[in-house]
Order: sequence, then C-alpha cells, then structure tokens
Amino acid sequence: MRPIESPHNPHLRRLRALHTRKGRQEQGRFLLEGLLLAEEALAAGLKPEEAFLCPALLGGEKTERALAALSAETDTWQLPEALFRLAADTTTPQGIILVAPRREQPLSALDVPAEAPVLAAWEVRDPGNLGTMIRTAHAAGAAAVVTVGEATDPFAGKVARSSMGSLFRVPLAHAARAEEFTSWAAASGLAVAALTAQGGSAHYDVTYPPRTAFVVGNEVRGLPSELREGAWREITIPMPGGAESLNAAVSAAVVLFEFARQSALRHRAEAASAVTGDEGEE
Amino acid sequence: MRPIESPHNPHLRRLRALHTRKGRQEQGRFLLEGLLLAEEALAAGLKPEEAFLCPALLGGEKTERALAALSAETDTWQLPEALFRLAADTTTPQGIILVAPRREQPLSALDVPAEAPVLAAWEVRDPGNLGTMIRTAHAAGAAAVVTVGEATDPFAGKVARSSMGSLFRVPLAHAARAEEFTSWAAASGLAVAALTAQGGSAHYDVTYPPRTAFVVGNEVRGLPSELREGAWREITIPMPGGAESLNAAVSAAVVLFEFARQSALRHRAEAASAVTGDEGEE
Repeated sequence: MRPIESPHNPHLRRLRALHTRKGRQEQGRFLLEGLLLAEEALAAGLKPEEAFLCPALLGGEKTERALAALSAETDTWQLPEALFRLAADTTTPQGIILVAPRREQPLSALDVPAEAPVLAAWEVRDPGNLGTMIRTAHAAGAAAVVTVGEATDPFAGKVARSSMGSLFRVPLAHAARAEEFTSWAAASGLAVAALTAQGGSAHYDVTYPPRTAFVVGNEVRGLPSELREGAWREITIPMPGGAESLNAAVSAAVVLFEFARQSALRHRAEAASAVTGDEGEE
Repeated sequence: MRPIESPHNPHLRRLRALHTRKGRQEQGRFLLEGLLLAEEALAAGLKPEEAFLCPALLGGEKTERALAALSAETDTWQLPEALFRLAADTTTPQGIILVAPRREQPLSALDVPAEAPVLAAWEVRDPGNLGTMIRTAHAAGAAAVVTVGEATDPFAGKVARSSMGSLFRVPLAHAARAEEFTSWAAASGLAVAALTAQGGSAHYDVTYPPRTAFVVGNEVRGLPSELREGAWREITIPMPGGAESLNAAVSAAVVLFEFARQSALRHRAEAASAVTGDEGEE
C-alpha cells in the first residue's frame, strides 16, 4: 500500500471523476464501493486496476482480508479518513473502493447460447431498477442484458449495489439506437418478445423459442414503434387486480421466469421421452 | 383555504410529526406528498382530514385543480413557501400534502374472496421494496398485503411513492407476530405457501388452491421456522443462472403472477367444459 496524502493526488482526482457518467466514459473505468461488493467482484474474476483503502474506516482485520484478496497487479493506495471521504460516494463509507475497466462488450461480440433468454431494457432511467433487472436476469440464466437508447449507466454506483454482485456476472452490452438492437437480434436468430402494457398476447400464452430476447420499456413511456414493429410477438402481463402498470424490473422478472418455467418443463418432457423412447407422438 | 403563518401553528406541528413512525402511530394518520399521489388517493376514495397547499410552489392552475378535487370535509390550509418547505419531506416539494387516517384493518376484519391470493411480507425493511410489493399485489389481484413482524411502516412516504397509488387500493393489515398470521390464515382457510431460497418445491410445480397466502421473507434472512413449519407448502423459485438470491419484491412478483397464470388457465378450462358439457372426465 502506497500512501495518498494530498487531495490533489492525480489518482485521487481520477477516482473522483468516476462518480460522473462522463468520467466513467472518458476513462473507460468504473468504481465500486464497500467490502461485500468488492469481494463479490473479486470472486467473479474482476481485475481491479486500483484499490483505495482507508484502514481507519475499514478496520485492521478487514484491511488485511482485502489486501489478501487483491493481487499484485492492482495498484493499492492507503488514504487517511478525511481524504477517503472525499473519494467516496456513500454517506457512511466502509473504507474500500476498487476501480476496474468497464466490462461492456460490443453488441456484435455477445455470445448467446442455444438456450437462454436475453433481456433488453429500453431507456430504463432508475439505477435501482436497472440493478434489480441485472440481478434478476442473472438468476434467470440470461445470456446478456442489453441497455437500449438513453438508459442509465450500468456502471453507476447505485446499479452495482442494487445488482448485488450480478453486475460482474452477466454480460452487458449497449445499443445506442433501437434499430441497432433489432438488427443484432435478427442476425443472431433471436425471437424478440416486446412487452407492452396492453394489447399483446398474455405472456403465458406464448411458447418461447429457446433463444428469446425480452424487450422491456422504461418506467413512464412504453416501447417505441421501432421496437414493437420489429418484434416476433408483443406480450402483455395480464393484471387481474386492474392496476395501471407494473414496475419495470418486476415486469422483466415475470417474463424471464415464465421463460425459465417453460424451459424447465421442456427439458423434463425431453428427458421423459428419452427414457421411454417416445418422441412425443403418443 | 385558511392561512398558516407561523412555524408554531399546531396543525403544522402535528403534520411534521407524521414524518416519523412514532408520530404516525400516535396520531393514527399519515401524510402523502405531491399532486399525482394526491389525485390517485382521492380517485381511490381516500378521505383526507387535512390538506396543506402552497400556491407559490404548486402554481395557480394546479392549486385550483386540487381545491376542486377536495371536499368540504377536508380542512384546507395555505402556506407560504418557507413554511411549506418545513412541512415537506422531499427536497423539491411540489406544494401539496394530504393527511388521512391510516387505513390498515385488523387482521380479523380482512375479507378474502373465494379466489384471490394474499401476500404476507415478513420483516421487509426496505420501503421501496414494500411499496413495489403493494403495487405488484394490487396488479396481481391480491385480496390483501399483510406485513408480519418488524416490517417497515407501509404508511411511510417512500412506500406510498413506490406503490404508485396502489397503497390506497389494496387492503392492508399487520400481524405483530408470526403465530398471529398463521392462526389467522388457518382460521380463514388459506393455504400458506412459504417462499424459501432453497429446498422447496419449484414454484411452478405446485397447484395453488384458489385461496393461497404467499409468505415472502425479508432482504437478508429467510423465513423463521414458525412461518415455514406451519406452511402448507414450501416453495422455491429455481434460478438456472445460479445467482444467490432474488430481490424480495421480485420473488413476490414471480409467485403472485404464477398464481394468476394458474387461475386464468383454470377459468379458461372451466369455461370450455361448460360449453361442451364436458366435466373434464374425457
């Protein structure tokens, strides 16, 4: 651990710039705060370029645990409490910040296996919602989460915290425009299921192909026509209670787990017919 | 509109006390801020006792709209901007606050129709999560949301905002202890499905009775043994992607909409057999 003793230290200044979207994009890096998130990131194979520790805040034992988990390739800095508070985004900083390269992939480099859903989130603005979507997509076995249009930055601090570490597990990509996403989905052989508040088929009445991309709109407006018209199906979650709408992350969860349910039952049926030698012809 | 001109005005002081849980419980009332939420509440039939308006912040047109929507039974106060900012919880107040009686029901007074789920949330601490659960339960047609144990107060400001008005639509009740909930569920003929992170039946493998109560745990710990042991079934949401856990509101959504899916398909089958005179015996 090398010390940082001045608020003008260039590493500290570059770190502080990562609290803004502009800074994250210019540097191609992001930061994550807190011991739990740091451990999740390291366990997921994230290679931080830098680590900023404040033993006064973190405590001796946790500082040792953090140092043991960090490799020699990570430049590790030690900060007194006053400087660490300048560096932190949270009001009660825990004393550890990691800085790592952003890990989006170009859309064209995403690998979608033969059987997995993809979640595309159009212009989702709320970082907590995006983080919950990433966590949910990870749990449901999604091949990737693609943000489409003017979405919130997945590498903002609150997204990482809401994703509970799934940010480091699920491949992420961004499509600046709707057409970019639809062309990629078509070229990749994905069936696009566009979720609309009303007028689509009930989400449970559609049999999803093994490679389906679910497109979810943002909190306020529905999906733009480019995303609906190019879709394989428009689907709607029926709401027997008659509420006006669902939270965007909740909608994503309902359709991703309906996909997972159908997949599991299909595998079970295949396994059963393999045992009996029955190819499903009764 | 009568004016409030002093920070020591007793109505203003009682209003400010409603920002705390203690104040809400002592007064048996809660407050809600903002024009959208106020309109949703009035549309849902909420009868506010008091309204606090700041025409300087709200603007002339919206002030008139608010006054037109309020009945003569609501004591309506006008505040200058500096006093209104003292009253408001939000950093950019819109200029309208309503105060209404808390609308929980005693558990024993809840009416569960012949076909509807109930959502029970055990010790959910995050107000945003509880609000999302209430919104989701409303959409899925739940008969009630029951908070169990040391849960966050459903009448806290952030719950109302996250619920998007569903707070005023779904019956709410509270059970201070787990046994209170399980006795009520048994007496009401509800099948209790307890959601656990692992070891339960896959949530889609269980056929839910028309009256099922889903019990969801809090963000960190699972359900206590009292709630698991008394349950009709323990259910688990399979996570093919292998994440550690789901957000509590997401879990609630997945199981409530699986219930809704099964209900819809059962109704469809009943309607089809009524048409053909076939009672399902093939």
